[in-house]
Amino acid sequence: MEVTVRPVTAADKAEWQVLYDGYQRFYERPDLPQSFFDAAFERLLAGDPHDFHGLVAEEDGQLLGLTHYVFHPNLWRPEGVCYLQDLFTAPEARGKGVARALIEAVYAAADAKGVPAVYWLTAENNYPGRMLYDRVAVRSPFIRYNRPL
Amino acid sequence: MEVTVRPVTAADKAEWQVLYDGYQRFYERPDLPQSFFDAAFERLLAGDPHDFHGLVAEEDGQLLGLTHYVFHPNLWRPEGVCYLQDLFTAPEARGKGVARALIEAVYAAADAKGVPAVYWLTAENNYPGRMLYDRVAVRSPFIRYNRPL
Amino acid sequence: MEVTVRPVTAADKAEWQVLYDGYQRFYERPDLPQSFFDAAFERLLAGDPHDFHGLVAEEDGQLLGLTHYVFHPNLWRPEGVCYLQDLFTAPEARGKGVARALIEAVYAAADAKGVPAVYWLTAENNYPGRMLYDRVAVRSPFIRYNRPL
Amino acid sequence: MEVTVRPVTAADKAEWQVLYDGYQRFYERPDLPQSFFDAAFERLLAGDPHDFHGLVAEEDGQLLGLTHYVFHPNLWRPEGVCYLQDLFTAPEARGKGVARALIEAVYAAADAKGVPAVYWLTAENNYPGRMLYDRVAVRSPFIRYNRPL
Repeated sequence: MEVTVRPVTAADKAEWQVLYDGYQRFYERPDLPQSFFDAAFERLLAGDPHDFHGLVAEEDGQLLGLTHYVFHPNLWRPEGVCYLQDLFTAPEARGKGVARALIEAVYAAADAKGVPAVYWLTAENNYPGRMLYDRVAVRSPFIRYNRPL
Repeated sequence: MEVTVRPVTAADKAEWQVLYDGYQRFYERPDLPQSFFDAAFERLLAGDPHDFHGLVAEEDGQLLGLTHYVFHPNLWRPEGVCYLQDLFTAPEARGKGVARALIEAVYAAADAKGVPAVYWLTAENNYPGRMLYDRVAVRSPFIRYNRPL
Repeated sequence: MEVTVRPVTAADKAEWQVLYDGYQRFYERPDLPQSFFDAAFERLLAGDPHDFHGLVAEEDGQLLGLTHYVFHPNLWRPEGVCYLQDLFTAPEARGKGVARALIEAVYAAADAKGVPAVYWLTAENNYPGRMLYDRVAVRSPFIRYNRPL
Repeated sequence: MEVTVRPVTAADKAEWQVLYDGYQRFYERPDLPQSFFDAAFERLLAGDPHDFHGLVAEEDGQLLGLTHYVFHPNLWRPEGVCYLQDLFTAPEARGKGVARALIEAVYAAADAKGVPAVYWLTAENNYPGRMLYDRVAVRSPFIRYNRPL
């Protein structure tokens, strides 16, 4: 069996939610209300070019991972940039290349849109993630500051 | 005289360009063509809610600094987030609180739009910048990865 | 079979050298001369309280890992500090708790000497190492600068 | 008047203590007992080759800064290494090149001893320090882990 990556569809909702909940828990945002998942899923299906797109990795009819990305303007680049916000592989599906396949599918989607610059942010101590990112991307010296809310 | 912050206007172009060129040189992107500045300035004036907005800091009729920011979607937050991409103070105007005034004006603009979450990225070794950012914002543990282009 | 940690002895030289060579290669210092290993091993056996001490992890008569540490003065602490310079587990012995056992043995040796403060340095991108270090130690905000040689 | 750097002497104690107290306060270790300063100063004067050495920067008979360094073994280098633990410039003497002069004097002392490798650790957010260190030294990718005490 091989891992394939495709756009998320309405039929994926239950499996998608399990994955996205796992991702949120990884970042210690547990116990999000159902309305959070409903709203996010609706946005992914809406096809709004200014909003998020979703891809899922599938093997043998089962979802193993997801990624969400958005195109947004950048004043330095007229075509804009692609921000890969979310990336998650089911714990039981680690080591099969799911995350790499998802990143590469975002690269392909960005190319198809004429927006080759793809970036993401990750916690400095996301060691398993960074082992992969160091192979498919380049760490920049940029760090993120947030307004205190 | 006091530093005031206001939206950039068509009459600011020459002074704005001197500042933005200084900013690009700080990031070692010298010798950008005039078309780069023309296109960026046109976008700032267009008033497109999906594209960049510009603010300038002024004292005694002279521009001392600039900032450019954009609102973009975030799947975790329905109202989106505000990305402050560019921030620059003229070298001769350092130490007057220009950068702080610009950041605070972006915070106010974000509040007015109902998008309180403001963030930016900066090089880890931008020491003068970080001295200020540590006072007006919170450093996150997030670092940026870029697709190799 | 259980992993045990004990001081290195003269009889360990051949196996110790295989491990220490693996460690040096991890840090991209391949092809060190035999004299490097001879001199380092001699120092470990000399018992000089100002110089390095060596511990090895053993299972079923085979060496699986090593660590080298030294006590050195610190002006802030009259009793000094313990610097754990080298730590290595044979690739085929990963996941058995070898590195943790070695670190804990250094902690015990430091306690026995009345020098409880133990520290080490590691590359920011030593992800497998840091997964362990985050469990048995505390990351400080300190980074290392070297004189250019 | 020019800044000169020389070894600390018994007559420097009162001025040295003011500086060292300022340094400790910078690292948020205020209110150290007099016995701490007495013991540290005695060690600096003792001339023990295994213990710390102290240098002071002087201008017009006044101490403007200090540094403390120690030679300790390194298993990778037979001649050992030089650890520059403390470096401080009086707040009112900033911008005169005091810290640079002190670092360069440690480099010279290390050369005189045949131990050219000098290093130090600094907090990642010690921005003023790092502005200087980036000019006289090289940032390594190494970070420090401490045993929890």
